[in-house]
Amino acid sequence: MAARTEYLVMRTAHEREFVNLTEKVRAVVRASGVLEGFVLVSSMHITSAVFVNDNEAGLLRDIEAWAERLAPRGDYEHHRTGETNGDAHLKNLLLGHQVILPVSRGDLDLGPWEQVFYGEFDGRRPKRVVVKVVGDGPSALELGVDRGPRGAGGPR
Amino acid sequence: MAARTEYLVMRTAHEREFVNLTEKVRAVVRASGVLEGFVLVSSMHITSAVFVNDNEAGLLRDIEAWAERLAPRGDYEHHRTGETNGDAHLKNLLLGHQVILPVSRGDLDLGPWEQVFYGEFDGRRPKRVVVKVVGDGPSALELGVDRGPRGAGGPR
Amino acid sequence: MAARTEYLVMRTAHEREFVNLTEKVRAVVRASGVLEGFVLVSSMHITSAVFVNDNEAGLLRDIEAWAERLAPRGDYEHHRTGETNGDAHLKNLLLGHQVILPVSRGDLDLGPWEQVFYGEFDGRRPKRVVVKVVGDGPSALELGVDRGPRGAGGPR
Repeated sequence: MAARTEYLVMRTAHEREFVNLTEKVRAVVRASGVLEGFVLVSSMHITSAVFVNDNEAGLLRDIEAWAERLAPRGDYEHHRTGETNGDAHLKNLLLGHQVILPVSRGDLDLGPWEQVFYGEFDGRRPKRVVVKVVGDGPSALELGVDRGPRGAGGPR
Repeated sequence: MAARTEYLVMRTAHEREFVNLTEKVRAVVRASGVLEGFVLVSSMHITSAVFVNDNEAGLLRDIEAWAERLAPRGDYEHHRTGETNGDAHLKNLLLGHQVILPVSRGDLDLGPWEQVFYGEFDGRRPKRVVVKVVGDGPSALELGVDRGPRGAGGPR
Repeated sequence: MAARTEYLVMRTAHEREFVNLTEKVRAVVRASGVLEGFVLVSSMHITSAVFVNDNEAGLLRDIEAWAERLAPRGDYEHHRTGETNGDAHLKNLLLGHQVILPVSRGDLDLGPWEQVFYGEFDGRRPKRVVVKVVGDGPSALELGVDRGPRGAGGPR
């Protein structure tokens, strides 16, 4: 088995912003050596979302407007603590906290339009996204390791 | 470790349709040889959903009506690209893009009412769902393999 | 590889209730011996949710009110079967059926505010949540096992 964990630090310029993470996730997958497994991409904060959708600017504006319509800024009980981001917590729940993507043949296994997005709803401060790959790494045989004429424990 | 990946091709007769995938997912799990692990069921498109719920026809109609109420057909910025399926993208986000199910003792480990559904919102053309099982396969001992009197590396 | 599966039985006093599962999930992770992997926390029923958010009482009331606004009690087709919990099925879809959390260095790998909640919407009867950990367990070397001068199959 092989595993690799990286923590992406997100520093958005705006309070709300969508960031396409797909190539960063792909790089972690390739660096992991995992051939068959899963990669988890998960916000480590509860005021930002991680979701899969299409990388089309108009659609991303539609998604932001839709999230605002269903989980609007407003007066929430949570604000009695001094916070002002109640809507961001609900947008996290609406759009999703995380995705898990298949890793096949050593690479991200996505459909033609699937892209992984980070959705920030309370930004302008550093936040983290965990990217964790777990799965089957290359066997000694695939790595070309010479285990000798009586290679112990290998397949025969 | 063991892994198995299958791609289900969905060809719905209608633009919107729910398809119960549970038995197909169960068949992939059993064919995988995985005894303890996870199976990911994920749409490879962003205009269809994968979710767990109850296989009751009235409830499925309720879910469709609810998705239409919260993410209605309408005029979206995405449509400036020539597309007309903005609502289907939002329904994917509302109902969910994927599920991950436990595999225990070589089988799907579901509660009594849990069923896995594909929710198509822009159908009448072929689409794919990835079903990927990853986990612990049978050991040489469990498979009854004779590893000889000095079986190297096996449990004693 | 290592795996551990536990089924938490939820018996809420109220029809609707949020229960913080974080410490129970952490205990399962630690008991599993998994060092690097994933833990799935998934409702085995489709009228309750599992989600990640902040453990703040006002926010939890906001989440309940929000779920009621978007997926209200009402008259659903599902009720023709004699059931009365159509809204609970929709709240499950809105808040999410499950989460998968990273396990790193043998422990839950969460951000500072991430907590795992069970959201009951049709309670006062026993229900189950599955907690399943799968990943890389300690190797013989890490366990300090003496495999002798010619330890078969171990790393050299």
